[in-house]
Amino acid sequence: MTRRSFLASAAVFAAPSTAPRINSDRLRRDIEDLSAFGRPHGGTFLDGVSRVAFSDADLAGRRFFIRRMQQAGLEPRIDPAGNILARRQGSAQALSPVLFGSHIDSVPSGGNFDGDLGSLASLEVLRTLEERRISTARSLEIVVWANEEGVAYNAGLFGSRAAAGRLMDAELEQVWNGVRKHDAVRKIGGDPDRIAQARRPAESFRGYLELHIEQGGTLEKAGIPIGIVDGIVSIDRYEAVIRGFANHAGTTPMAERQDALVAAAHLTVAVNQIVRREPGRQVGTVGHLSVEPNAQNVIPGLVRHTIELRDLSSAKITRLGGEIRARAAQIAAATRTEIVITGPKRNEGASATPEVQAAIEAASGRLGFKTRHLPSGAGHDAQMMATLGPMGMIFVPSIGGISHAPQERTSWEDCARGADVLLHAVLAMAA
Amino acid sequence: MTRRSFLASAAVFAAPSTAPRINSDRLRRDIEDLSAFGRPHGGTFLDGVSRVAFSDADLAGRRFFIRRMQQAGLEPRIDPAGNILARRQGSAQALSPVLFGSHIDSVPSGGNFDGDLGSLASLEVLRTLEERRISTARSLEIVVWANEEGVAYNAGLFGSRAAAGRLMDAELEQVWNGVRKHDAVRKIGGDPDRIAQARRPAESFRGYLELHIEQGGTLEKAGIPIGIVDGIVSIDRYEAVIRGFANHAGTTPMAERQDALVAAAHLTVAVNQIVRREPGRQVGTVGHLSVEPNAQNVIPGLVRHTIELRDLSSAKITRLGGEIRARAAQIAAATRTEIVITGPKRNEGASATPEVQAAIEAASGRLGFKTRHLPSGAGHDAQMMATLGPMGMIFVPSIGGISHAPQERTSWEDCARGADVLLHAVLAMAA
Repeated sequence: MTRRSFLASAAVFAAPSTAPRINSDRLRRDIEDLSAFGRPHGGTFLDGVSRVAFSDADLAGRRFFIRRMQQAGLEPRIDPAGNILARRQGSAQALSPVLFGSHIDSVPSGGNFDGDLGSLASLEVLRTLEERRISTARSLEIVVWANEEGVAYNAGLFGSRAAAGRLMDAELEQVWNGVRKHDAVRKIGGDPDRIAQARRPAESFRGYLELHIEQGGTLEKAGIPIGIVDGIVSIDRYEAVIRGFANHAGTTPMAERQDALVAAAHLTVAVNQIVRREPGRQVGTVGHLSVEPNAQNVIPGLVRHTIELRDLSSAKITRLGGEIRARAAQIAAATRTEIVITGPKRNEGASATPEVQAAIEAASGRLGFKTRHLPSGAGHDAQMMATLGPMGMIFVPSIGGISHAPQERTSWEDCARGADVLLHAVLAMAA
Repeated sequence: MTRRSFLASAAVFAAPSTAPRINSDRLRRDIEDLSAFGRPHGGTFLDGVSRVAFSDADLAGRRFFIRRMQQAGLEPRIDPAGNILARRQGSAQALSPVLFGSHIDSVPSGGNFDGDLGSLASLEVLRTLEERRISTARSLEIVVWANEEGVAYNAGLFGSRAAAGRLMDAELEQVWNGVRKHDAVRKIGGDPDRIAQARRPAESFRGYLELHIEQGGTLEKAGIPIGIVDGIVSIDRYEAVIRGFANHAGTTPMAERQDALVAAAHLTVAVNQIVRREPGRQVGTVGHLSVEPNAQNVIPGLVRHTIELRDLSSAKITRLGGEIRARAAQIAAATRTEIVITGPKRNEGASATPEVQAAIEAASGRLGFKTRHLPSGAGHDAQMMATLGPMGMIFVPSIGGISHAPQERTSWEDCARGADVLLHAVLAMAA
């Protein structure tokens, strides 16, 4: 199907006023209800959520989502990677389905819109079609991907990587917080022994759509409700291990110290400076850092920290990674420490498919919403789906550009607008 | 009693060969046996110890020590602050006792000599006198101080501060690892409701002696077995709380970030540079640092870290603290973060008492051991005892100057030499 044919099929909806809309109150209630799983003790919806993948909160949130699917008359299943899937049959069952969804795991102290909006809006699209008795030619399949954030096991897009056949060898043997990944996958209902069967064939869907909050401030600043994603940045993730020597903080002269934290501090400053000293949209972050033995009266002997680089150009982040390694060698020599940087683990970026972008554009136009094209600085499961078939993403504004924080917000009106665009883009692609 | 009288009374022991000695094999076995409490799983004596005060390992180590006291015929008691005390009666019970001891709590991943040597050598001194049926005029009292290291509750010298009447108001209300200090003190057998009764009157002891490892490399480098401490450095401890804004590490442009860890890295480098840029023996350490939310794909929103400054001159560390505060204000402005530095909590240093130093000097001479005077860069319970009466410390060499680390070592010969000097200094002071 070409861009032209999407637009033609959409013409069944004549004008904004008569186009079907999702139930925005129901969507809001679902987002609020899901927020209870992983909410800080004594907090409210406004206090954000900690629903790290494979945690008890994640398990509870997944069960909530499955119940909501069942209440909508769907028959959800969990695939071997722990992804939750449900399908609404179309009239032309020989045709591949339209796939859409997102994730419901969060970072620690994250917000209630990242992933949750796209997941619950996908369910809401199916409920709306059912209520309105709107049938589609192609089947519609919704998905909640497992461990998108990758806080657990320092490796994100787990479920969609499994679907794309991109799991690393031995990945299930990793241990995090004392739990083998094999067992974590089983905990959420997956089947680690059959993980290869989570893989989807290429072209097994007509197109993949994902609604998500922007997580940056571009749309809000511009006053535009709908973003059409051009592509997703590549991400390189490194781990730096800095070995000094733990010694008494009172009796060891400054000149004789091998202070791993002083070395890590120099390296953290260097990452920031190297990333900032040239123009462009590249970003670099030291987000996780741990110190041993971490006592006020002991010189730190060991520091581990992450280094994360992102840009649409993977060549640029490769070069920046090299500059950081070179600087680390100088820091190690100057501080009498050993610095070993492993990585990068790369999440390859992806371009959105023009015909899917056009369907989003057309749906927005039909509903009377202004749009802007923009890149995604965050990684998304959509980039894995892009390796299998056509992909597009719909962004809605993040208030203040805040995400991965309890203060993450999107107005309920913008949530509903994004879900309506998803509905109409799905209808166009399923026709 | 004057320096002259100490020397006179010591003359009963004519020559090194006939002077009584402690049982070095028994002392070694005790140190090895105590090391089992808090030993890393599967490790050996050489793998160090984690016996943080109030932990289960600390409790087990204290019980071991109490059993050893009882096996030596002593009747140990625990005072309201959790200090373990035992007394051997002298013939002149109206006279104040000679007090000596150390501590058995450790830093995380610490060594098996820091505190343990002085505590077990003190017990060994009493056992030696008992076996040899040597009586003293003054009573002898040994002590194992509670929570010397101060890893728990970030406040060291707990037991000796209680004895010196220097606990802070509301100190027992502090919470660490989810446990109120009140309850921690009760756990080790103290009585927090009667904590004021742990206070000792001034001049309630003839003198306080403490044998300890040097924890620096001066004695080993000089090839001298016995150090006579001139004084203990003052310590200022600060906490820096750096508030940035936790946000998505992919979607937040570098120029819009408020990265608390980048600010903390600048401050950690600044502490190191400010302390090093002038001559002297002052030291400065950032030993404990924690990051929130501490995920690789989230810009750090909050960092807390300690800053510790030490020098014999409290005026110098006061000035350095001021320079660090001024630099922190610049860093906060440059990184768009808020930096609040609280403190300092000061551990005031102390000078050793010349007559006690002379007794140590004389005991060493009698035993044929070379000595050197030196300051202590580490804090010790002895500095609290110095507020109540005469105080002196005996140092023995630390191999490689290593302490607060599993590789902390002192040769068994040096351990025995230190214990023998303690024995003879005690005898001189008790005569």
